[in-house]
Formats: sequence, structure tokens, C-alpha cells
Amino acid sequence: MALVVTKFGGTSVADTERIMSVARRLIAREEAGDQVVAVVSAMGDVTDELLVKAAEISPSPPEREMDMLLATGEQVTIALLAMAIHSLGHEVISFTGSQVGIMTDAGHTKAKITEIRADRVRRALDEGRIVIIAGFQGVTEDGQITTLGRGGSDTTAVAIAAGIGADVCELYSDVDGVYTADPRVVPRARKIDVISYEEMLEMAATGARVLQLRAVEFARNHGVVIHSRSSFNDVPGTVVKEADSTMEQAIISGVTHDTSEAKITIRDVPDVPGVAAVVFGQLAESHVNVDMIIQNVSERGTTDISFTAPIEDLVRARRATEAVAAELGAREWSVDESIAKVSLVGAGMKTHPGVAAQMFRALADAGVNLDMISTSSIRISCVISADEVERAVRALHESFGLDSDEVSAEVSPGCGEEA
Amino acid sequence: MALVVTKFGGTSVADTERIMSVARRLIAREEAGDQVVAVVSAMGDVTDELLVKAAEISPSPPEREMDMLLATGEQVTIALLAMAIHSLGHEVISFTGSQVGIMTDAGHTKAKITEIRADRVRRALDEGRIVIIAGFQGVTEDGQITTLGRGGSDTTAVAIAAGIGADVCELYSDVDGVYTADPRVVPRARKIDVISYEEMLEMAATGARVLQLRAVEFARNHGVVIHSRSSFNDVPGTVVKEADSTMEQAIISGVTHDTSEAKITIRDVPDVPGVAAVVFGQLAESHVNVDMIIQNVSERGTTDISFTAPIEDLVRARRATEAVAAELGAREWSVDESIAKVSLVGAGMKTHPGVAAQMFRALADAGVNLDMISTSSIRISCVISADEVERAVRALHESFGLDSDEVSAEVSPGCGEEA
Repeated sequence: MALVVTKFGGTSVADTERIMSVARRLIAREEAGDQVVAVVSAMGDVTDELLVKAAEISPSPPEREMDMLLATGEQVTIALLAMAIHSLGHEVISFTGSQVGIMTDAGHTKAKITEIRADRVRRALDEGRIVIIAGFQGVTEDGQITTLGRGGSDTTAVAIAAGIGADVCELYSDVDGVYTADPRVVPRARKIDVISYEEMLEMAATGARVLQLRAVEFARNHGVVIHSRSSFNDVPGTVVKEADSTMEQAIISGVTHDTSEAKITIRDVPDVPGVAAVVFGQLAESHVNVDMIIQNVSERGTTDISFTAPIEDLVRARRATEAVAAELGAREWSVDESIAKVSLVGAGMKTHPGVAAQMFRALADAGVNLDMISTSSIRISCVISADEVERAVRALHESFGLDSDEVSAEVSPGCGEEA
Repeated sequence: MALVVTKFGGTSVADTERIMSVARRLIAREEAGDQVVAVVSAMGDVTDELLVKAAEISPSPPEREMDMLLATGEQVTIALLAMAIHSLGHEVISFTGSQVGIMTDAGHTKAKITEIRADRVRRALDEGRIVIIAGFQGVTEDGQITTLGRGGSDTTAVAIAAGIGADVCELYSDVDGVYTADPRVVPRARKIDVISYEEMLEMAATGARVLQLRAVEFARNHGVVIHSRSSFNDVPGTVVKEADSTMEQAIISGVTHDTSEAKITIRDVPDVPGVAAVVFGQLAESHVNVDMIIQNVSERGTTDISFTAPIEDLVRARRATEAVAAELGAREWSVDESIAKVSLVGAGMKTHPGVAAQMFRALADAGVNLDMISTSSIRISCVISADEVERAVRALHESFGLDSDEVSAEVSPGCGEEA
């Protein structure tokens, strides 16, 4: 008997028919002898519809009220799913985030989980019930409803799994696992069977969108085994867990890419201590999520600083850069939105020298010019021109022997699901 | 400065435009110096849409999950209304029934309020906020979400008004008060300015649907002054309060009618002690809400028993009657669904003899045959044939001098609002 936490995203519960299908799947698990918890998102477009209503009323609604509004989405799903399971003759109970004790800080719309009080879940499981929990939401110590922000339902599922000591946390979505590259770009991409937390974190951080970075981090910190799989079939997906000796150690796990960032360059700033602190201090204050940073070699006492940041932060980034460039007496600054980042991720890199050289060679052979480079112990990322990104990903995938023998025809878009 | 609880039903908050309009109305009240609490229902058809979704999944969903589902409707409204007030530059906070301490028993889908813990409302008012509360919902001691059943939002508003000691509880709906008769039937019906709890209870119990019986009872028990008025204009509506000497004492306050009941007759049951107890004991056990009861004069040791009950209880009523008729050895039993009840309500009846005689005369003159009669100290009700009900109401309204000089052209359907 296993203790299983499952999570179904918005697409998997988009209408009552799909909710019935999730109900049947959960019952099958229970009948196979498992204790089953399901965390669910709002149905299909419900969250977007609520956002539209809020926008009709105010361009900048209070975040507390936004959470009050959005939390209803998951509450509808848990009630309907519980009804579905009940109608099929099984014991079930649904809980909101508040009821189930997902305690968070007061950071409305992006609250952080501070504690899981899972007694109520355990008690319901001991009573022989399937337990349904609203994802994406929590409650503060003084009873305010909060939401967890992007990827919130995945995080709820992992947190509940940690709280009750589940054997596995199965995250169902509309894709059947993590691939060696985005199958839309590389038709010969292969599904990865097992991957370590560290590699998954690097892949999620550099463009693999099946699993949310935050949920994987939470899983790593609490030792929760994640199984990323499709809600539309029974094929095993990708297991994310602690690296161990039994894990097949590929040198390279995957090639990721990301076109959601822009590059900003500030030219001819004085090359004196503290300049970088001023620049990035200002950006941090403006809540710009800076990714890669490159400072070029100094010439004649000045230097150029380049960094990348999400395009969605660009308005704030421009404002901060303008201010800081003026403050530092920089010659000029510029923004390039037509960049892409291509990354190679693999724990084997640590012990296999020459991976970087092979990567740069493969990109050069494909005629791809490198703009910025950054590395971690298990990742190499290059910023390139956006219009060369597909060519770059395919070249790397082939060069590192990741191509499958067959073209995967049935892979869906691969964007994963929100919240 | 007054402390005011207002309640807006589903029609008044049916879309974001109307929510903005409610927001402006509440702000105007606050700017006039009042402390303002607003209790709101789910937007327009939202509750019905949720019921449809539930029905798609199960014909008989668990009531606990039904409450979990339905409670989301009001939660959406409170968040949007709070956003609207905030966007107009005023301090505001919204609360679910659970957050605001509307404690109920565990009678899911028709829970009874056991306690109001209004500290949070008082605190928010003291902080200078407009307070928005989800109607229709509460929470049990162990944290289960409940709903209050029909008329629930009115009851929430009255209960909150009692809990914080409000000066008045204004119940806004799509009609502008209580009329001397249904204006769809009697175009010359007049709006009643002030009415006592007792009369309002009798009118609500016999067909006036503007105010829910339950909310009026709660108001009477806690001395809450109700003001029933329209959300679409600023015209004063009907005030319901304790009868006092300053109140204009009309002999007759209004004529009500009700076509939602059926009559069941059991013929030739033994006329021995305990028979009625058996019949109505069985009906009560079957949750049939019996209204009028008539036992005819005994002949040859047997008697006929007739009673009325809501048509919506008829399936259960038939089953119970069949069983009890067999048990008692009755000759036969029959159901008549084409009946109506017409009632005359007025506190002046107590001190003015002859009202009943005048009523029966007026009905006779209009050619209306009486089937059953029942009275209280301030009400006389007659069961008549359903196809004669409009004629009967008009005849009584005219006979007792209730007709207005002018025809009210602008009156809306007058069904009031649900929940």
C-alpha cells in the first residue's frame, strides 16, 4: 500500500466530463490498495475569467481581494470532484487550503508556505476517504485567504506530500513527462525516465516548463519524490528524486531553451569597485529578476555591463537602468529583445571534461554565434540570437547523442499547465 | 451617525457594472456619515450555473460538497465589490461567512445560525472601513462550510445587524418594498410604508415574497429594524419593526395569495382519538411541511381530513398519505393541485369585528367559492380554486379600501430575489 499525492491541473479538470475521468482514475488507485490525496487547480479558463472580471472593475485591485476572488476557482473544482467520486460510490472529502492547514505568510498573490498542518488529511485518510484539496491557496495565521502564485498547485501537492510523508507526489498535466528537449523543436526528443532534483532544477530554471522550479525546490528540500505524468494516458512519466548510484547517469540530461528574456547592456560605466552593486541593487529594488550577468574586460577605465531579465520585467528594468546609467555617467544603454538562451544540463558534466568545448563546437558548426555564456557545475548556458534558437537546440541535441531512434508524433504542445 | 447593514441580492450585483453602482451607493452612505456593512449574494445566475455543473456530475451530491460549491458564488461577489470600493478610493475589507464568524449547526444546505461572532466586523468598522460580507454562508464549529438555504443572504444581513447592534438592516432587492397585494395582480396595490413584524410574518407566510419569513423572524427575535427597498432607485421602501403607538394602524395591511400548495384529502377515517396524530406524525416524519389542516364534522363514526402542503413536497406527501390511509383503513384519498390560498392580513382585525364576514361577502359577490378557511388573530386565509385567485385578490383589495388612486406602472415582477 502506497500513500500517494496526485495533482491535476486546470486542463485535466476543464469540464465535468474530465472531472469524472479524474474521479475514476483516483478510485482505480484506491482500489489498487493505495491511500489517495488529490490536489486540483481551477477548471480550465476559470482563473482567467475571474481575472477579466477583476480587470473590468479595477486596473490594480488590492491583492488581498484578488486572492479572495481567485481562491474560489479551486474551491469549485474540489466540490465537483468530491461529488464525482461520491457518485461512483466511494468515500471522499474535500478541503480548501484554509481548511487543510496550508499556512502561509501574508504575501498575497504570491504567498510562501510556512507550515503544513496535515492532521485533517491524515484523519480523513484513516477514515478510508479519498481526500481532495484545493491547490494554489493557503491561509495566514489570522485567517486571511492567500494564493501561492505561479505553479502554486504543484507546490501545494509537494507540500502536502511532505506534510503527510507520501511515497510519491504525482503531478499530472497535459504532457507525459520531462523531455530531453522541447519536442516541438526537436521531434526526436526522448522522455527522461529518472532525473535528479539538481538537474531538474537547472532544466526548469532554463526553460523546461513541465515542472515549476518552486515545486521542485520544495520537493528537494523535503525529499519528496515527484512523478511528472500525463492525465490523458497511463504511460509512466518522469521521476524526479535524489541522485543515487542506481540512477542511470547520462552525461547530458537535456537541452533547454528560453526566449522569454531580454538583454540590457550599459556601456562605458566607470570600472571602479561598487559599480555592479549599484546597478544590481537598483534592479533588485525595482523587482527585476536578473538572470545572467556579464561584465566585459575594462578598457580605458570604463567597462560594459550586460545582463538578461524576463521580458515581463522589462518596463521596470528600463526605468531602473535609465536611472542607474545616469547616476553612473554611463555613455549609453540598450535593450535587445531578440535573444534566446540555450542550455545544456547534465550531472555528468562534473566528471566529464570537454563538454563546454563540444557545445561551442557544435554551435559553431551550426553557424550559431555566442553572445553571452554562463555556467554552473551541471549546466552551460549561451545567449544567442532568437532566430537561431531552434537550429542551436537541434544541433546540441544531436551532438550529445540525445536523439531518439523514432520521431515522437504524439507529443502535445509541452507547455505544461498553469497553477 | 448610523450603523447600517445593507444587503444586495443577486440581481443587484449581476454584473461588474451593477457592482460598481452598489459600490457608489455604499460610499455615498459612508460619506453621509454612516458606518456601512454590506451583505451580498452571488452574482445573477451564478448559483444556478453551479447547480447545473453539480447536476452534470451527480443527481444527489453530498450536501457538504454542495455547500463547498455554492459558497464560492458569494465569495466572488465580495471580492469584486471590495475591489470596486477600493478603486473609488475608499477603505474596505471583505469577509466570507467563515471569516466573519457566522457560526451554524451542521445542517448542510439549510444550516441554522447558532451564533454571530462579530468582533472582526466591529474592528474593521472602527478602522474606518466599509465591510463586505458573503451572504448565505456560515461555518460549523469544526470548520465545515455551510449554506443557510433559501433567503439565506437576508438572514445573514439581519443576523449581522443583530450581532453589531445596527440601527437598521436595509434589504435591497429588485422591488421597492412590500405592497398591499402583488402589483402584477392588483395594479392599484400600494406600497406599505411601515408594517409590524407580526403582520409581515403573516404576509411572508402567506405569499408575499419580497421578504423571507426566516429573516423577518430573526429580526423580530432580535429587534432588528428592516428596511426593504429597491437597489435601482432611492425611494424609501417598507420599514418592518415592532408595532408601536406611532405606527399608522390600518385595519388591513394587505392581501396575499399563494399558488404553491396542493390539497390532500383523506376520506372516511375512523373518528377516534389519535387519528390526526397518526396522520400528521407520519407527514412530519416524511418532512412534509403541512400548512392548513381541516377536519370535517364526523358522520357515522368516520371523518374526512384535509390539509395543504407545498407542491414541492408532494412526492413525499403522496407516499406518506398512501401509507397512513392504508394503516387507518380510510376509504380513499385524493390530491388537488389546482388550489390557491388567498389571505387577508392586518393587526386591526383584533379590534375590528366583522372583518371575516366582510371578506366572505366580498368573495361571494365575486363568485368565488371557499374550500377551506383558517385564521390567526391577525390573518384570515381561504383556500379557493386556483383559477379564481386573481379575481379574489382584486375583490378583497377593493373591498377593504386598499386600492390606490393611481395605477403603479413601474413596478417590477415582484418576486424578490433568491438567497
